[in-house]
Amino acid sequence: MRRLIRYARRMSAPQLVLFAGGATGRWRVVRIDAVRGAGLAAVERLEMVEGDHAAVPSSSVWVLRGTTSHERYVTQSERAALEERQERLGRTGATRAALIPIRKSSPWWDLAQDQRREIFEGRSRHIATGLEYLPAVARRLHHARELGEPFDFLTWFEYAPEHVAAFDDLVGRLRASEEWNYVEREVDIRLAR
Amino acid sequence: MRRLIRYARRMSAPQLVLFAGGATGRWRVVRIDAVRGAGLAAVERLEMVEGDHAAVPSSSVWVLRGTTSHERYVTQSERAALEERQERLGRTGATRAALIPIRKSSPWWDLAQDQRREIFEGRSRHIATGLEYLPAVARRLHHARELGEPFDFLTWFEYAPEHVAAFDDLVGRLRASEEWNYVEREVDIRLAR
Repeated sequence: MRRLIRYARRMSAPQLVLFAGGATGRWRVVRIDAVRGAGLAAVERLEMVEGDHAAVPSSSVWVLRGTTSHERYVTQSERAALEERQERLGRTGATRAALIPIRKSSPWWDLAQDQRREIFEGRSRHIATGLEYLPAVARRLHHARELGEPFDFLTWFEYAPEHVAAFDDLVGRLRASEEWNYVEREVDIRLAR
Repeated sequence: MRRLIRYARRMSAPQLVLFAGGATGRWRVVRIDAVRGAGLAAVERLEMVEGDHAAVPSSSVWVLRGTTSHERYVTQSERAALEERQERLGRTGATRAALIPIRKSSPWWDLAQDQRREIFEGRSRHIATGLEYLPAVARRLHHARELGEPFDFLTWFEYAPEHVAAFDDLVGRLRASEEWNYVEREVDIRLAR
């Protein structure tokens, strides 16, 4: 049954997702850290809204937009390994979340596909590292670069309170990788519900 | 000098480009063919407008939106070969153009990156075929899938009248490739100025 649902999700067209920070929203903001470059204004709550006709709370202080999309680097065998272990969003026990918007530099985007893949996985082990934290950490990537947004990617993570330290470990390892030399702006937003 | 200009263009962020069909515009519509799936309404003129604050003619019958973006399949060595030969848009003698919007099927987007690359170039020779028609045919690709548009890609081509037959040959070869099994909608708009 779970496999069927995953397949249905992958078949669908890109979905617009809005992340609105402000006075209302299902998620309480625990902290917002400006990891690199400019941060985002402090807010108390965050709402995630899906769909083309999504409306954000009128009290929003900032709204970040992204779309789900097809995978850009994952190979067939890597996908099989991911699908074997990854979990869906919205699990009952996953009461902690993180939204990590990043923007990569022009030198990254000027690399050819094979050069980006080599840094992303060949040398930085982005996929292999993430795999170690499955199924504890559920994840959904949103693309924002083509929408004219201030960030290129908005990655959303959900996990249980007992996996907070593991999640910190995951983001720490990625930030120490060669790929992160190309990250010119990063904000780390931690949430709880 | 030309190399410098190309480099500057590649460094830039994605640029929004609008294609507006209607009663006005710099390009005269020679014909609109529905190659696969639904076509587009007949119009007399087409305007291409660049930039985030672009305004389209108020008389527009349809408007297609896309953004320039980084390359998704081209390797470093392929890019070097392309940059050696490709020409810029707007050449004085290039008084013929084509706008070819396509949408690919769910099975295409559900393939992993290595599978898409293998079909795109390994078996369909998309890049190698295009290279044969340089520098006669100048080309710019616009991505539209993440914008919620009816097409995934809008490709714009410019060439001189003496290269019309060569361009027909190019599109014919691509349409006969395995990659085109995954094209579920295609419109071919030919233009002159």
